[in-house]
Amino acid sequence: MKPKRVKVYAPATIANLCAGFDVLGIALETPGDSVMATRTANKEFRFSVETTFLNIPISIEDNVAAYVSSKMMDELKLPFGIEMVLHKSMPVGSGLGSSGASSVAAAVAVNALLDKPLTKKELLHFAIEGERKASGTAHVDNVAPSLFGGACIVLNEKSLDVVSFPVHNDITWIVIHPHTTIATSDARRILPTTVPLSDVTCQMGNVSGLVLGLIQGDAELIHKCMVDHIAEPVRQSFIPGFIEMKQAAMASGAIGCGISGSGPSVFAVTLARDKAERIAKQMIFALAKAEGIKADIYISQTNCQGAIVTESKDEV
Amino acid sequence: MKPKRVKVYAPATIANLCAGFDVLGIALETPGDSVMATRTANKEFRFSVETTFLNIPISIEDNVAAYVSSKMMDELKLPFGIEMVLHKSMPVGSGLGSSGASSVAAAVAVNALLDKPLTKKELLHFAIEGERKASGTAHVDNVAPSLFGGACIVLNEKSLDVVSFPVHNDITWIVIHPHTTIATSDARRILPTTVPLSDVTCQMGNVSGLVLGLIQGDAELIHKCMVDHIAEPVRQSFIPGFIEMKQAAMASGAIGCGISGSGPSVFAVTLARDKAERIAKQMIFALAKAEGIKADIYISQTNCQGAIVTESKDEV
Repeated sequence: MKPKRVKVYAPATIANLCAGFDVLGIALETPGDSVMATRTANKEFRFSVETTFLNIPISIEDNVAAYVSSKMMDELKLPFGIEMVLHKSMPVGSGLGSSGASSVAAAVAVNALLDKPLTKKELLHFAIEGERKASGTAHVDNVAPSLFGGACIVLNEKSLDVVSFPVHNDITWIVIHPHTTIATSDARRILPTTVPLSDVTCQMGNVSGLVLGLIQGDAELIHKCMVDHIAEPVRQSFIPGFIEMKQAAMASGAIGCGISGSGPSVFAVTLARDKAERIAKQMIFALAKAEGIKADIYISQTNCQGAIVTESKDEV
Repeated sequence: MKPKRVKVYAPATIANLCAGFDVLGIALETPGDSVMATRTANKEFRFSVETTFLNIPISIEDNVAAYVSSKMMDELKLPFGIEMVLHKSMPVGSGLGSSGASSVAAAVAVNALLDKPLTKKELLHFAIEGERKASGTAHVDNVAPSLFGGACIVLNEKSLDVVSFPVHNDITWIVIHPHTTIATSDARRILPTTVPLSDVTCQMGNVSGLVLGLIQGDAELIHKCMVDHIAEPVRQSFIPGFIEMKQAAMASGAIGCGISGSGPSVFAVTLARDKAERIAKQMIFALAKAEGIKADIYISQTNCQGAIVTESKDEV
């Protein structure tokens, strides 16, 4: 007998990680989105959002969690209805994979109500398709880590071929989310369409070394490899206070710093957990000084397990 | 008291490994080159070559082992002379890092005679500079693995920043060396100068996944990731019998197959050691059938330790 009500938590992500442009992402422990899904006797889908953020879409067409759920109900021809509440606890358009976390939370929640659950790869398909439809764009590297946990390498974006690996436990991520937005589609439009071969091999060396550094928790290696020759050079001027935040992070002992996803959030990384708060404070101080913009701070280890069912009830 | 005579073995390498074009290489257990170096009272450098191959240069200017040694003697202002014998047991221009192995063997041998030995990074500098001078070109990814062992990622070709990592023990390499030569400089001239962004991210995903697959010994992951979007598409037609050998290797159970370095050697990889001989035989059969060319076969695990001193004597 499948549960009648489940609650699912899906974590935010940092995609790109400098050298890993479009192929590498990690899951954070916090922030993240939660979804509560209840099976109902009628075949309807009812949806609501609980949030303190103002710009969260609530229609079934526009909200990614709702879209993914209704898509799954349709395609899987579910013999029951679902009442879903999305607890949206992070902003959209932040560069933290916010809509990815919502779509993953919804897919995992609907799956937990099924008699025959889908595989994670099948869930990734729904989460990606949903996000693409609802948000206009979907990048596997900021959705897959929310589902699988750890770090994920995207081997093939079309076939959704992804491999995850564990990140060393000492690694601490600092994310600064400035209270401003930029459009992901704009952030893609300015990317180069071709890359000089010498930059390609630099980036390949860096992303390979970064994978090794994340596995081994090798501060020097991560530091050397968190360099992006493709996106950061053209995107950094679109991220308010980026240069100042990066300087502040590195001066405060971070081993790497870059744009989270396509921004505006900026992440830094350290292997010394006790330095994280100081790094974060220096970054928001630099941002405030340069741009007069306030920001939220998230400090988190890597989430190892990805989206999980946190509550499950047979009766409601 | 430093030894008076040393013998050093330096292994051959497979560079590029498909997705790892110009950034990834591994060291083989066999073949490899040996160098015997003896300290002498006069400050002269004497050099000879023992080999069954016909095209090995023997002058100090042209032979890479001799060039590296005399360069080290000059720059380090050694207070003694060296008599060196190079036992050259693999062909040059093979795509197996043959001159890299000779230059590494020489550098490690001279180093073993020093009162204050250099670091491996300093030795890499001499090996690379020597190979560049003597061979006209030097690529770190086919020299570094011979020195460090395991697999090496080239992080920065100019500053010789390299990181090595252990390859899973189950991995077996098969190398077919056709009895023909191609010039590395020609093999580079046909490379693209820019790469479409979509190919760049494919290659980045593949090289990242390949690093993970080599560490974990994951056959499926290695299989998916041993795909080259940069060099193989333009180089394969220059490698006699390449397409036929690759088809034969994959049909015989190899999990990957590609051009070793810039060829003409072709490598295949398997995690089933007992399949290696059959794969090799099918590859040379395909080569003979397609091109009428004979070939040598090398079957080897990954060399973990790189170049080593195999003999050391205080008196001669």
